[in-house]
Parts: sequence; C-alpha cells; structure tokens
Amino acid sequence: MSKQELAVLGRSGDAGACCPGLLTTPLDEEQAADLAKVFKALGDPVRLRLLSMIASRSGGEVCVCDLTPAFELSQPTISHHLKLLRQAGLIDCERRGTWVYYWLVPETTDRLAGILTRPAGEPLPERTASAGAAS
Amino acid sequence: MSKQELAVLGRSGDAGACCPGLLTTPLDEEQAADLAKVFKALGDPVRLRLLSMIASRSGGEVCVCDLTPAFELSQPTISHHLKLLRQAGLIDCERRGTWVYYWLVPETTDRLAGILTRPAGEPLPERTASAGAAS
Repeated sequence: MSKQELAVLGRSGDAGACCPGLLTTPLDEEQAADLAKVFKALGDPVRLRLLSMIASRSGGEVCVCDLTPAFELSQPTISHHLKLLRQAGLIDCERRGTWVYYWLVPETTDRLAGILTRPAGEPLPERTASAGAAS
Repeated sequence: MSKQELAVLGRSGDAGACCPGLLTTPLDEEQAADLAKVFKALGDPVRLRLLSMIASRSGGEVCVCDLTPAFELSQPTISHHLKLLRQAGLIDCERRGTWVYYWLVPETTDRLAGILTRPAGEPLPERTASAGAAS
C-alpha cells in the first residue's frame, strides 16, 4: 500500500530533472497527461479538504478514523477519495493494526509549486497588441 | 469577455489575503469548493497544453488561430477548453478584429504556487508511529 505512483511528476531523467515548464515551455502530450492526473486529483473539494487535513496535521500523519467524522460521507467514499490522492502521489499511507495512517508526500506538492512558479528574474513579458498580428 | 472569475482564489478579506493554507490549515468547505474549480480546470491534458502554450509565448499573448493547429480537435472544442481556463481565472482574452487573443493571468498561477508551497522555515514534522495512537 505504501508504493504509490510518485513518478507522475518529475521523473528522473526528465530534462531539468525537476519540473516540466508549464509556464515556460509548451508541454508535450505525455507531460500534459501525467500532470493532468495530479491536478485532476486536486480538482475535488472533498479531496482538497482531506489533503489539507492530512498536510496540516501536527505529527505529520492522520488516522483515517480521524478523517471520516469531518465529512457526511460513507467510509468507502472517503477511502475512494484517499485512493485517488494516493494514486496521484500526493499522499501515502500505512496500515497499523486496525487503522490506516496517511501522510503528505511533500515532494509532489513541492514539484507542483515549482511547476506553477515563474522563473526567478523572468517576469512575464508585457502583452503587446502586435503579437500575432502577422497571422 | 475580459472580466473573468478572478476572485476564485485569494479574495481580498481572506485571512492572510493571499492563500488559503492548503498545507497548513484544514480548508473549509467554501475554500475547498473554490480551489477545486481551478484545479479541475488544470486537470485535463488539452487544457494544460493550451495553458503552457499561452504562458510560454514570447510576446505574452497568443492568437487562437495559433493554438488550434497544434491539436487534432475542432475549433469549438478548443474554444470550450479555453473558456474553462478563463472561468477559472487562469487566462484572459480579448477579441481584436477577426481573432481572439489569450494571455496568462499570472496572479492566479502565483497564488496556486503559494498555496502549494510549504511555509518557509517550517519543514513538515517527522512522521511518528505514535501519532493517532490514542484513537
């Protein structure tokens, strides 16, 4: 249960080794497909709340038994959302006895933040009315 | 066409004025719903490619006529994806004569990057096997 698809982002061997350049270079189809999976996992309010509860937890991890009561949803529904977050490499988990414990995979959120950060010292160019005028 | 839902993220008046603390504080339902809309817009490979083409464009903006040929999709389909990116506040556009020109709204990607960035000087705590043990 602990091995997740952490490779979705920033696979070793990628140019730059860190982040496809969402803001600096057009993504190719494979990069876009990989990255879309992670953003899609974040594109749901319940999953965002679960992620924020897990990430902000003092101690670094949360028992699933402490997550479920915050939602008016069944345990299987919560488990399904947690599974999607795991498959996106955003969280990981481990069973210990009766309960499963979840924690953030900060490498993934760090990489997302990097992908969405403009290169230092490179402000976006001023928009010019002439751009594309030759088309 | 130029007024978009830029308020989805970081409405003035929010605590911190910048970013709901995805990694530091559990999101409330309204924050999660707002933020999920933006991530959902990013959760599609075609929209990610469009966004990266627009964001990385020298000159800062792109004619829709230069976006469409990169995809084996109809013009209405491309326009639909661009509309979803606009509604999420990620891009904006303006019609000039025959064509519509698109540009990145960097404030939105900056805010997303901020939301996904761990607080400076606050590494995530070590996970401890005892966390949640009282449950």
